Amino acid sequence: MTALQLLDYASVLVFALTGALVASRAQLDIVGFAFFACLTATGGGTLRDLMLDRNPIFWMDDPHILGVACAAAVLVFFTAHLLESRYKAIVWLDAAALAVAVAAGSGIAVAEGQSLGIVLVMGVLTGCAGGLMRDVVANEVPLVLKQGELYVTCAFFGALTTGLATFLPQTVSAAQAALACAAVTFCLRAGSIAFGWRLPVYKGFPPRYKP
Amino acid sequence: MTALQLLDYASVLVFALTGALVASRAQLDIVGFAFFACLTATGGGTLRDLMLDRNPIFWMDDPHILGVACAAAVLVFFTAHLLESRYKAIVWLDAAALAVAVAAGSGIAVAEGQSLGIVLVMGVLTGCAGGLMRDVVANEVPLVLKQGELYVTCAFFGALTTGLATFLPQTVSAAQAALACAAVTFCLRAGSIAFGWRLPVYKGFPPRYKP
Amino acid sequence: MTALQLLDYASVLVFALTGALVASRAQLDIVGFAFFACLTATGGGTLRDLMLDRNPIFWMDDPHILGVACAAAVLVFFTAHLLESRYKAIVWLDAAALAVAVAAGSGIAVAEGQSLGIVLVMGVLTGCAGGLMRDVVANEVPLVLKQGELYVTCAFFGALTTGLATFLPQTVSAAQAALACAAVTFCLRAGSIAFGWRLPVYKGFPPRYKP
Repeated sequence: MTALQLLDYASVLVFALTGALVASRAQLDIVGFAFFACLTATGGGTLRDLMLDRNPIFWMDDPHILGVACAAAVLVFFTAHLLESRYKAIVWLDAAALAVAVAAGSGIAVAEGQSLGIVLVMGVLTGCAGGLMRDVVANEVPLVLKQGELYVTCAFFGALTTGLATFLPQTVSAAQAALACAAVTFCLRAGSIAFGWRLPVYKGFPPRYKP
Repeated sequence: MTALQLLDYASVLVFALTGALVASRAQLDIVGFAFFACLTATGGGTLRDLMLDRNPIFWMDDPHILGVACAAAVLVFFTAHLLESRYKAIVWLDAAALAVAVAAGSGIAVAEGQSLGIVLVMGVLTGCAGGLMRDVVANEVPLVLKQGELYVTCAFFGALTTGLATFLPQTVSAAQAALACAAVTFCLRAGSIAFGWRLPVYKGFPPRYKP
Repeated sequence: MTALQLLDYASVLVFALTGALVASRAQLDIVGFAFFACLTATGGGTLRDLMLDRNPIFWMDDPHILGVACAAAVLVFFTAHLLESRYKAIVWLDAAALAVAVAAGSGIAVAEGQSLGIVLVMGVLTGCAGGLMRDVVANEVPLVLKQGELYVTCAFFGALTTGLATFLPQTVSAAQAALACAAVTFCLRAGSIAFGWRLPVYKGFPPRYKP
């Protein structure tokens, strides 16, 4: 198993946990848990594979992936009541999944020989799309939209780390680049959740010239 | 015309009727009716064909399909006021369309020689995606999320029926498998709507260990 | 650079401006602006290219496209406060982008040798999908759903113009067809915004036969 495949598994597992937790907030049954787990776990990677025209799509190639997602759904169905705050668990698990998924998405784009711009897009897309689909379908406010929090920004700088590690002259292995990318993404996101790190947001100054 | 093509037509027609009824609830004009009819009718199958890399997509291959959807839109535009309860009509038509679409989706995955896991996913996806897109775009609460009702679960057991009929040793024709799949899906969904059949849902017990 | 490429650039630029304006209404940071600009600018064309199995997707082939979208995001981030009404700017820019995107989408379908029905669908899809994604992700009421306004209808008649210009016996160049299509789309949409042009909408007459 290559480092990239391991990353895909890890991101599937952790995103599936967040999907199942969202299903528990919506009080669905066990099949609904599995539905949200699979949607969240495979959404971003499916879009990536469709756009890069990779065929078959990663979870078709390897049926264990859907098994992992369903196992995560069953686990959450029977243990979610042990959590003190499901929302907090969702936010932190989502941060971990984001870090891993950005590393997987940007790493695969590098492995396919794409240019820096495409590497950035694929990293952000793989990282954010699964969680975005989960939130849109579940009628929750998408985490990408949370004001005053870094989210897409973390994915962007993570993917940039992969890009720099790859396109700079030093020799860096794919596994090292993925590790650096995941570390950057997770640290930025964790700093934003725990310490309120943020970029200046658009404030809507009053119009300069009054009519 | 094969049994699978006939199924695709039937699911297109019935999903298009539900899409047009949703458009009538949003008070759109005739083009808006056709837009929602086509979106609902082709959404699930389009995703299925993109993922299975079937080319061209089913409604590109056969322009009659969009014609059927548009005819359904026109029909609903001029007759929806005859209905006593549009919502009830949407729910029951959606149940019929779900049954047919799950049979079409899982049947095509079988015909493409996919494994059992993929057959299940394609059945659920083809069945649920069109209605999900309809509800998300129209700002209605997605039917997949309705608490205490079987929806994804019906699609899952329907696709499982196709899978069992195909992968078990007995010889079962594609048409027989499709019929069994549609019957299982529709009966489960109808039982859920009419008699309140349901699986145990996640209840959110209080945390076991207080902090 | 061909006329069709120029159209794609223009629609990317104008849709990116509307995406960034929506991001400013959600008070996101600069990366969020770029995210919404890229999503809106490339959403419709990406769907079109996936369905027509064009490979690579237009913005992968030409990294300038993402550059244009990001430049639009930066521009809006620093100048949106100069606008008197961001909503009005979004609506009018969206009308311009719709016109250009419908021309690009239907023109490409013609260039790919598709039939009239597919040309109509691709025109409507390329025109409406980007803005629809923008509105769904940003939790705004989709412009396609605005009651009493022409939106999908404008895209439909614009694409029909391309189709008629192409499939009628006269010789019309691709650039002329695109110009006619964009003009029809924009005039219909502008007339609807400014003068309230509309088609009769579904009114929900009372049931004809009382129970």
